[in-house]
Amino acid sequence: MALQNQDYPKLQDPQGRKIEHGVILKIVTTNICGSDLHIYNGRFAAPGGMLMGHENTGEVVEVGAHVERVKVGDICSVPFNVACGTCRNCRERHTEVCLNANEELGFCGAYGFNLGGWQGGQAEYMLVPWADFQLLRFLDRDQAMEKIRDLTLLSDILPTGYHGCVEARVGTGSTVYIAGAGPVGRCAAASAQLLGASCIIVGDSNPARRELVTQAGYEVVDPSSATPVADQIEAILGTGSRWVDAAVDCVGLECHGNGPNGCSHNVEEAVINTMMEVIRPAGAMGIPGVYTDQDPGAPTDLNKQGLMALGFPGAWVKSPSFTAGQCPVMRYNRELMMAILWDRMPYLTPLLNTEVISLDDAVDAYEVFRDGSPKKFVIDPHGMTGLVGTGDRSQSAG
Amino acid sequence: MALQNQDYPKLQDPQGRKIEHGVILKIVTTNICGSDLHIYNGRFAAPGGMLMGHENTGEVVEVGAHVERVKVGDICSVPFNVACGTCRNCRERHTEVCLNANEELGFCGAYGFNLGGWQGGQAEYMLVPWADFQLLRFLDRDQAMEKIRDLTLLSDILPTGYHGCVEARVGTGSTVYIAGAGPVGRCAAASAQLLGASCIIVGDSNPARRELVTQAGYEVVDPSSATPVADQIEAILGTGSRWVDAAVDCVGLECHGNGPNGCSHNVEEAVINTMMEVIRPAGAMGIPGVYTDQDPGAPTDLNKQGLMALGFPGAWVKSPSFTAGQCPVMRYNRELMMAILWDRMPYLTPLLNTEVISLDDAVDAYEVFRDGSPKKFVIDPHGMTGLVGTGDRSQSAG
Amino acid sequence: MALQNQDYPKLQDPQGRKIEHGVILKIVTTNICGSDLHIYNGRFAAPGGMLMGHENTGEVVEVGAHVERVKVGDICSVPFNVACGTCRNCRERHTEVCLNANEELGFCGAYGFNLGGWQGGQAEYMLVPWADFQLLRFLDRDQAMEKIRDLTLLSDILPTGYHGCVEARVGTGSTVYIAGAGPVGRCAAASAQLLGASCIIVGDSNPARRELVTQAGYEVVDPSSATPVADQIEAILGTGSRWVDAAVDCVGLECHGNGPNGCSHNVEEAVINTMMEVIRPAGAMGIPGVYTDQDPGAPTDLNKQGLMALGFPGAWVKSPSFTAGQCPVMRYNRELMMAILWDRMPYLTPLLNTEVISLDDAVDAYEVFRDGSPKKFVIDPHGMTGLVGTGDRSQSAG
Amino acid sequence: MALQNQDYPKLQDPQGRKIEHGVILKIVTTNICGSDLHIYNGRFAAPGGMLMGHENTGEVVEVGAHVERVKVGDICSVPFNVACGTCRNCRERHTEVCLNANEELGFCGAYGFNLGGWQGGQAEYMLVPWADFQLLRFLDRDQAMEKIRDLTLLSDILPTGYHGCVEARVGTGSTVYIAGAGPVGRCAAASAQLLGASCIIVGDSNPARRELVTQAGYEVVDPSSATPVADQIEAILGTGSRWVDAAVDCVGLECHGNGPNGCSHNVEEAVINTMMEVIRPAGAMGIPGVYTDQDPGAPTDLNKQGLMALGFPGAWVKSPSFTAGQCPVMRYNRELMMAILWDRMPYLTPLLNTEVISLDDAVDAYEVFRDGSPKKFVIDPHGMTGLVGTGDRSQSAG
Repeated sequence: MALQNQDYPKLQDPQGRKIEHGVILKIVTTNICGSDLHIYNGRFAAPGGMLMGHENTGEVVEVGAHVERVKVGDICSVPFNVACGTCRNCRERHTEVCLNANEELGFCGAYGFNLGGWQGGQAEYMLVPWADFQLLRFLDRDQAMEKIRDLTLLSDILPTGYHGCVEARVGTGSTVYIAGAGPVGRCAAASAQLLGASCIIVGDSNPARRELVTQAGYEVVDPSSATPVADQIEAILGTGSRWVDAAVDCVGLECHGNGPNGCSHNVEEAVINTMMEVIRPAGAMGIPGVYTDQDPGAPTDLNKQGLMALGFPGAWVKSPSFTAGQCPVMRYNRELMMAILWDRMPYLTPLLNTEVISLDDAVDAYEVFRDGSPKKFVIDPHGMTGLVGTGDRSQSAG
Repeated sequence: MALQNQDYPKLQDPQGRKIEHGVILKIVTTNICGSDLHIYNGRFAAPGGMLMGHENTGEVVEVGAHVERVKVGDICSVPFNVACGTCRNCRERHTEVCLNANEELGFCGAYGFNLGGWQGGQAEYMLVPWADFQLLRFLDRDQAMEKIRDLTLLSDILPTGYHGCVEARVGTGSTVYIAGAGPVGRCAAASAQLLGASCIIVGDSNPARRELVTQAGYEVVDPSSATPVADQIEAILGTGSRWVDAAVDCVGLECHGNGPNGCSHNVEEAVINTMMEVIRPAGAMGIPGVYTDQDPGAPTDLNKQGLMALGFPGAWVKSPSFTAGQCPVMRYNRELMMAILWDRMPYLTPLLNTEVISLDDAVDAYEVFRDGSPKKFVIDPHGMTGLVGTGDRSQSAG
Repeated sequence: MALQNQDYPKLQDPQGRKIEHGVILKIVTTNICGSDLHIYNGRFAAPGGMLMGHENTGEVVEVGAHVERVKVGDICSVPFNVACGTCRNCRERHTEVCLNANEELGFCGAYGFNLGGWQGGQAEYMLVPWADFQLLRFLDRDQAMEKIRDLTLLSDILPTGYHGCVEARVGTGSTVYIAGAGPVGRCAAASAQLLGASCIIVGDSNPARRELVTQAGYEVVDPSSATPVADQIEAILGTGSRWVDAAVDCVGLECHGNGPNGCSHNVEEAVINTMMEVIRPAGAMGIPGVYTDQDPGAPTDLNKQGLMALGFPGAWVKSPSFTAGQCPVMRYNRELMMAILWDRMPYLTPLLNTEVISLDDAVDAYEVFRDGSPKKFVIDPHGMTGLVGTGDRSQSAG
Repeated sequence: MALQNQDYPKLQDPQGRKIEHGVILKIVTTNICGSDLHIYNGRFAAPGGMLMGHENTGEVVEVGAHVERVKVGDICSVPFNVACGTCRNCRERHTEVCLNANEELGFCGAYGFNLGGWQGGQAEYMLVPWADFQLLRFLDRDQAMEKIRDLTLLSDILPTGYHGCVEARVGTGSTVYIAGAGPVGRCAAASAQLLGASCIIVGDSNPARRELVTQAGYEVVDPSSATPVADQIEAILGTGSRWVDAAVDCVGLECHGNGPNGCSHNVEEAVINTMMEVIRPAGAMGIPGVYTDQDPGAPTDLNKQGLMALGFPGAWVKSPSFTAGQCPVMRYNRELMMAILWDRMPYLTPLLNTEVISLDDAVDAYEVFRDGSPKKFVIDPHGMTGLVGTGDRSQSAG
């Protein structure tokens, strides 16, 4: 992970063809994401020289000839999925598996990931193809800049946490278990509240992250405790039940085992098996946490073969539902933008605990974040937000 | 409307048959509802001597021989729809049109309404048939009594306002127009917030009710203003649009026309025609507000024939959806109870502005409420809540 | 209604701007639709000189510079709604109210209708804008030409009938009342069967059309009979019920009243009021039949003001749902194409009773169709289908 | 597996308490199910002396005192799930995990299975508790007896196959892969057709079962072929795709591996891993096939621990959905009954290939069925159907 000089991008696709449906954005904010850590930690294969950054917000500075709606000067949020808008999957609102955005795999494109060859936005400028379809414009520039701490979450983690809740069927009155109190898990907790959930329980072994969650009015469990997660949940619910209505995996393949010993090493199945234990009969689980069979660091022989040892046979009788995969950001981002613009998620800013940094500080921030900081790091490459250095960096180690 | 001596109820149905699936409740709270006013105002035919009251919460004091789950001493909320639990409609969660609860009409039973002959709960005791199916138990008696101001809304108006929003497809980020700032309209506004709506606009010509809405952080329009409702909405949205995503009719057949003159008389079509004007293309409308062709006071010749002059032809091209009718309370009350018990609706208490009164004050309260009080009146016949007389009655005239 | 010489179309929008996202199609088939009759009968205002025809299938002969997926030589079905693919409504699969396809009204574009100024396809060639988004390609040209009698229905009436059923929540086992046995009503009946409905009842006063329906294995009622429609339905169901689960209006504003006398004149409210009578409590209604407040021939004073006298007050207690408006064809056409290509709708061809005609015969066919022919007329301007003249025209008068 | 003398059942629950909400049925038909084979094969633990039989249809001969709707003489289908009708799960239409029907496990009761202690119906009489809620009455006795071959499937396998399709989101035009051509798999194929699917592909290594499927107009693949399943699917689809829209597991834990060698032994993960390979991005899978961690004959060490080695990491990027568990029969049986009564599933009788046998022949039939017979065996203990011995038993070995 290093800074490199980068040319101003061209209106051309990863195969080098001119694309007049694209625009060039000057980056306003580009966030560091937990998914980036999978690459950083060598757990998701990616080519050398790839530009990182799939959580991008920017100002349009150049538009291709075919672009009709987006104008130079527009401030826009960029969904992290690259999507064409005309294939079957895009038409059906499954932009996360667009059939035209990844020529190698045949589906699923993303910026700054090894999915289709699209460069990321942790840079000064970036290309966005199919811009009329993809970009979410903020109509009022001043309002957008004023709420940029929250709006910058629309490119990925707020829709992703929300998607996990939707797939877990979180709704009014639901009890919810969210695995992971990193930025996605915290966005999932906030989304559960927005969706009307009652008891929202977040599990994480990191006390600084649990503290943020507790301050926001949610419940916490510690999977590294000697008390099993289901027992901790039972104590919180106070009804004699050990079950939640919904569970969301915001951790993915780098999760650790349960208990004081288990928590010291990577057990790829830990989160999903725990969720199958605590889910109520007829309950549902969302799994936005990333899994892959392209994992050079898989911890077990079974995992190295792309397999997981899942407690599915015992869960079957509970009629559980599972939905895995990336969030189709465009299904949610306009709606969540509206909720933010009308101040319906005042809990988002303190819960995310965002620190805005310069591009020069990004390499350090990766390390701090990897080490469990309760911060969300947002890079402002051009100093457009006026927020660089205004957070209290000394807290970032939790 | 008068107080009358009433015998302790028997475990028998309106036809006089013994019903061992029923229980007798000692009333804890029984609310006065806007629907009661339709009867009070002679706009919904009802037989003389009928006991009013369909918004009931009570303590079980007697159980029939077939009752398995409900126990003496349980504090329960009673959904206002009478429902058997075994007919097709109940099985499909349409308890509002139970096929066994109204032998005359063939469907749709309710307490204290002219729907099936079931007596209301504005009394000391009441009968609840099919108790195992119908009653919502509060597991923790102390917690229930502590939050009784909010929990008493679960028998009708909170689910009803919520149902209107659900049928109007209110969800994250929706812009919503709610017609009426009476208790149901205020519950609809609170429900819209719980459902994640962004801009929530409530229309009412009563300034005291608008004031409650404004204090809760919602927007208001005044249909009696010379400025058309659509223009007022456009000014609030600030995007150039005159359309909302969703609209809910919380007024019903006694609504008044728009504009300074129109507002002085009953125009039965006013709310629905306004909603069809302000709804966005592809938007949806919920119509929990009561309409009937059994209206002795219908204002026009057309209305007297059970017809309304609706602007449907002009709305057709916008692909609108409408859902009318009573709320199936059992589809929502457990979920809303959970939201209340976990303190997810702190805005409910001030918005409803509830005053708890004795049974002796009920007749007066009807009159005050009919005259437009911004209060919600809750009768506590036995003084069980400890709340009688603690509100500030002097504000009740708005 | 007349044939006129028409220039080969240009790649430009109705405002005269170049549109590189468009293609030119050589028309393979272009159908005459019941909606065209509303224009023909002077019941839907349209400008002189407008090219008719919104049910089009064609071969791509020219593509704009921005078109990426569609190729010259592709055989494609054209959804009758014009839709951009990038506005909020298109993203949400509401292409029937695209925000960019009708600059005058602000939403809702269609070919050959007075909605956005787009020319129709009852011609030799036509323009299709936003072609990558809009066109449904048939992958196998020979298979497409072989099944063209059924596939030509995908541009409008099969999805429209299907949409009516979907909005009426027709599903496995539903009992359904479909008002109208014209081509859309017959497609609705076929759709109801595809959706798993049990008892499918179609109402029409035209005996030749009822005969087609009966031969397909569906039930019929005659609204011009002295026996009320609800009584006829009760006799068919044989369960003592007078209610159906779902009802679909495939007639629209030119419907006639019920009974031997009523049926002789246009009663705009007849179909919807009948549906409200026969719908079961908790049932739903789809209203794809066209209504408009731009009707120069509206039969009553109320109708002339854009109002209808609807029996909504009496229906309210049944908790009915209504969904009106045009079908978003792109939500259904690929799926229905698959059903046709895999021979899952063998009943479609005899039920539709299609006659393929030349462009020269089109003016006559309008008159025959208006007079109640049980045919569906499909124009083949270039003789590409090989089907012109193969049907038995003498049957067309029923 | 043996015949035993059995007393006429009492109106009491498995714990010996009197239950006045129950009825006694005289068995009309009781089917042998593939799930019974799991018990027969020692793969699902069950207590000695348990009466088998969860697919029951019967005539009411005795009713408890609390029963209101069901009458002596009614012919009824009995959903295989035991369900109370008043717990949260029953109210939410999840009768397959009723909270009151299995005191040991806390949820999920079934007849003739080790789930709650309820006796099965492969006998002359049986008890059905909560009869008003549970029983599906056939209104017309003669019609019921005439269509009994199809109606007997309503107690389990037709709803179960249908549920698998619903959970896999099969709808109009779907391409579907169904693993297993046993009776449930064949019901799933018929359900997929009823739901409007296009290309329906059923996989089974048993040629006699594949032959039944082919004759019904569906496609087949042979998992024991040297050609991989995905290659066989690609050849059938003919579009270059190797993916289906939906997949349904109608096999469960006793499935065999793929390929000529793999097919000779039980590989518990074979079906689910194949489904994850052939499912399209954004596709869904239904898993009604039975899995359990109470399997004395689990084939691998991992399986013995209640774990399966699933290829979930590689499937994650395709955004798949899974829904497991038993079918909530009451969600579908009335609807499917209507489809049968109105002759919308004429393909069901030949596809199921039902043979009606006497109770004396039941023990033999278990063996024949276990050995792969393409028959569905239905026991008629009292000779009420008049169908015993009318099938051609010589074909039963395939």
